[in-house]
Amino acid sequence: MVAWLGSSRRDAGDPGRVHTEGRIVRSTVEEARQKVAVFLGVRPRQVVFTSGGTEAVNAATWGATRARPGRPTLLADVEHSSVRDASGRAGDVVRLEVDGLGRIDPGRVADALDDAARHGPPAALVQCQFANHEVGTIQPVPDVVEICGRHDVLVHVDACTAAGHLELDLEELGADLVSVSAHKLGGPPGVGALVVRRGLRVEPFLVGGEQERARRGGLENLLGIVGFAAAAEALSEPGRLARESAESKRRTEAIVAAATSVDDVQVLGDRDRRAPHLVCVAVGGVEAEPVLLGLDQHGIAAHSGSSCSSESLAPSPVLAAMGVDAERSLRLSVGWSTTDDDVEAFATAFPRVVAQLRALRA
Amino acid sequence: MVAWLGSSRRDAGDPGRVHTEGRIVRSTVEEARQKVAVFLGVRPRQVVFTSGGTEAVNAATWGATRARPGRPTLLADVEHSSVRDASGRAGDVVRLEVDGLGRIDPGRVADALDDAARHGPPAALVQCQFANHEVGTIQPVPDVVEICGRHDVLVHVDACTAAGHLELDLEELGADLVSVSAHKLGGPPGVGALVVRRGLRVEPFLVGGEQERARRGGLENLLGIVGFAAAAEALSEPGRLARESAESKRRTEAIVAAATSVDDVQVLGDRDRRAPHLVCVAVGGVEAEPVLLGLDQHGIAAHSGSSCSSESLAPSPVLAAMGVDAERSLRLSVGWSTTDDDVEAFATAFPRVVAQLRALRA
Repeated sequence: MVAWLGSSRRDAGDPGRVHTEGRIVRSTVEEARQKVAVFLGVRPRQVVFTSGGTEAVNAATWGATRARPGRPTLLADVEHSSVRDASGRAGDVVRLEVDGLGRIDPGRVADALDDAARHGPPAALVQCQFANHEVGTIQPVPDVVEICGRHDVLVHVDACTAAGHLELDLEELGADLVSVSAHKLGGPPGVGALVVRRGLRVEPFLVGGEQERARRGGLENLLGIVGFAAAAEALSEPGRLARESAESKRRTEAIVAAATSVDDVQVLGDRDRRAPHLVCVAVGGVEAEPVLLGLDQHGIAAHSGSSCSSESLAPSPVLAAMGVDAERSLRLSVGWSTTDDDVEAFATAFPRVVAQLRALRA
Repeated sequence: MVAWLGSSRRDAGDPGRVHTEGRIVRSTVEEARQKVAVFLGVRPRQVVFTSGGTEAVNAATWGATRARPGRPTLLADVEHSSVRDASGRAGDVVRLEVDGLGRIDPGRVADALDDAARHGPPAALVQCQFANHEVGTIQPVPDVVEICGRHDVLVHVDACTAAGHLELDLEELGADLVSVSAHKLGGPPGVGALVVRRGLRVEPFLVGGEQERARRGGLENLLGIVGFAAAAEALSEPGRLARESAESKRRTEAIVAAATSVDDVQVLGDRDRRAPHLVCVAVGGVEAEPVLLGLDQHGIAAHSGSSCSSESLAPSPVLAAMGVDAERSLRLSVGWSTTDDDVEAFATAFPRVVAQLRALRA
């Protein structure tokens, strides 16, 4: 038994107060879990708080592959580096091809699952992102989930790019495991969630404590969890997400219009079915880096770098999988601080910058 | 390349300002790393921020055992559950016995390492906590580190209980891997650090991003890291840690005096060489739970439960390893909110509570 000698009971006379720090923290975490669950359309007990999207992805991949050891994981190279790296570490990997828009084909998933089972142990896990983090392409996740169910294979959906920008009804989706990052939807960095299908038990990734219903060891990041819940609650207001997404879509459409008004500029990924807040364009004849520097010199508030910097240094496996020249591609995203003025400034500067750079090369 | 359209450049005319959010965050994290490094007595680049002590322990164990696959880990059952669970998952485990005070014997570590190498593959890793989390016993860490060095075996020191309460000069200690938790030293929950010896490269536990010099994927928990650094900075003030430790020691000594003034109450663990802020006592003839409840009824601000609750529900493996009856043991700890009045209240209530309970049983 453990006792802490402190002053927290001094005001215990008030029966309306929870009288220990521990209980206050507990109820705060559970209220936060409720809010995040409402936002995601699941039950609170399905939500496991993690230290972010990366941990959620690592935990999902670990849990699913440990549940079915010695079996391969199926994934496309358009998945995020955390999904690719966690899968590669877990065992054999079977690559799924994508089309030129970066789309996973459910028919190919079914074929690959049949193939794997014919030539060796059946697959343990299929990785299928909700929307791509570089080009925004929305994947046919419901179809892939349905196919995995029929094949008795677990499916993990990396929804880090999608959550907060696309309507996710995870209860309806029925995926086994879903990863979400708080900072991508307005919460603080360093917190996220792994959503676990009801009835599914997977081995924890972080071991050594009974927190999160024995699914994740380690004291909870209270500050982060409260911030995550606040963002989730705001986005759960009726119409809020749809409104913000429409706004983002309108701005990224304006960016696309401005960019494609220039000769030999191509929109990468699925132009119709995409995450509303990001677009990716390829600029013929010029590399992306000087374009970015040029935009910067024209006073556009653009900055380079990715939170997972490996992707900005090495050629993008996402674009390589799509058969696109990564050197010429520029990902443009909008968020809460983006204004119409920013978009207009881009529309003015982009053609000039590209023209200057092309003139230099001519 | 990645661009974000936003307003962060609006005030870029001021050359004194870092003009992107990313750079501000980067320098904030690096300033925090510097402060934590100063506190721990290491170089900033040795510090890998994690989501807490549990992740640090998991990462240390993962990294060390993956560096030397197929080899066992040596540990005593007095280690924290995270160390035990992470080691058990990583492969074979060789148990180190402890004495009645919970002390690891460096001579036995040397013998066990020799034994392991004689009868199979040599050990990959020795786990040696800095101080025990239940009874406070300080382990002979410098001797164990020295022995591991001679045997070419990696050593991980779980310093979560010790950091902030005992002087740690990690540069001098020279352990390969050291885990620290921020909340145990006054920082927020959900952040910690893994300290990696210079020159040692270990595989990351969280994969998929190049953060933390490619040693830990995932966006940094900025709020947590800043809070951790603030606590570390405060504890780095000359004399501060020594002063706080002396205060804690004085109070726990008073607790010990009060507790042992009662017949058949025994102090568990090393009474001399122990973490200053916690003591563990065994009360003959009565179980710990009713003692705790009794203290509570007498207005003592005590609460039960551990952050890693598995340890409070199951019999303590720490006490079992020491050959002690866990049912009768009560861990008492003091912290920033503890006052001399709290200690006095304990001194008054404890003998009464024990007497009442013993009278009931008689």
